[in-house]
Amino acid sequence: MSKIFIDIAISLDGFMAADNRSPKNPMGDNGPAIHNWMFVQKAFWETHSMDNRGEKDDADGQLIRETFARTGAWMMGKRMFEEGEASWPEGLFRAPVYVLTHEKREPWVQKDNTTFYFINDGFEGALAKAKAAAGNKDVRISGGADCIRQALNSGYVDELTLHIAPLIHSSGLRPFDGVDKTKLTFIPTKTVHSPMTTHITYTVSPNS
Amino acid sequence: MSKIFIDIAISLDGFMAADNRSPKNPMGDNGPAIHNWMFVQKAFWETHSMDNRGEKDDADGQLIRETFARTGAWMMGKRMFEEGEASWPEGLFRAPVYVLTHEKREPWVQKDNTTFYFINDGFEGALAKAKAAAGNKDVRISGGADCIRQALNSGYVDELTLHIAPLIHSSGLRPFDGVDKTKLTFIPTKTVHSPMTTHITYTVSPNS
Repeated sequence: MSKIFIDIAISLDGFMAADNRSPKNPMGDNGPAIHNWMFVQKAFWETHSMDNRGEKDDADGQLIRETFARTGAWMMGKRMFEEGEASWPEGLFRAPVYVLTHEKREPWVQKDNTTFYFINDGFEGALAKAKAAAGNKDVRISGGADCIRQALNSGYVDELTLHIAPLIHSSGLRPFDGVDKTKLTFIPTKTVHSPMTTHITYTVSPNS
Repeated sequence: MSKIFIDIAISLDGFMAADNRSPKNPMGDNGPAIHNWMFVQKAFWETHSMDNRGEKDDADGQLIRETFARTGAWMMGKRMFEEGEASWPEGLFRAPVYVLTHEKREPWVQKDNTTFYFINDGFEGALAKAKAAAGNKDVRISGGADCIRQALNSGYVDELTLHIAPLIHSSGLRPFDGVDKTKLTFIPTKTVHSPMTTHITYTVSPNS
């Protein structure tokens, strides 16, 4: 059964992104530092078909490969897309990407099965398309914080993985802000220790 | 060498305490739920010399015993003390407790080596007294959020343990709010998985 999962990095104080976000400064000031654990892994550059700049290949890399392999479609918010559009190389996602936006725009077809679809009928409409595209694989909700909030409040998320980076942002965007605290049950199912981050996976289910 | 350590529970969205805190409602609405993992452990009731209401004795309990055994003195803020004073049984801490306050008050001597000292000369003054009292054991900074912030910003903290509870508070007090993001380096050293919480320990050191 295909799953809907969230897989995001956050700072020790719970921020997905820092202040001063823009296409020229994606994720804000020092924002990408929450992904430092990924950038050192060969698996990160391999899965995204980029020249390999990673020096490590350990449990963190294995996690990157597994997460990438299970992903049959991606969903993301408009601001995450716009911040990334300026700098992402073509073919990065290797699966269809559904972008939540009010903008009308034709699909942007890239190499390696990466096509961005711009969806104007809200979270649930985009999710239905992503699920259909994913087939037996899973749908990954990528971000940003507003998209994560919508996903959790929708009640459709099956699984949440947090990569907690050991740094403080002090300000920015937190994914749980605005999530209905009465609606969901989280159960930690797996923890993986790393000197650069901590990976925690939860099953998520709506309260009856 | 004696260490200064922080050991606190937080919600998935980073709160140590919820809204509507008072001595009649310690930690605020549903606040104590972040400690549910402790309340089911025999070790929690044993170490605090209370009638045993725990049904479990596993890795979480072992962690409670180790943390209690290493603690030679406690530090806490005035509001944490005032919220607890109304309901804590006597002799709970089994070591001297240094309370940061502006109130002048004689030490409150209880059984089992628990004595509350009310310290009026700030965080560093209280820390010096707690270190002297702890001897070869460690000093535990208990909370609340404002006391944790002061401790981290002081640069004296050696170790931080977070127990991340799988629930959302949505509002309340966050321990990292107001912590200087440039001042400290955190390195995750140990992670312990539990179905009721996730324990992460970091070494903490001031940046040079």
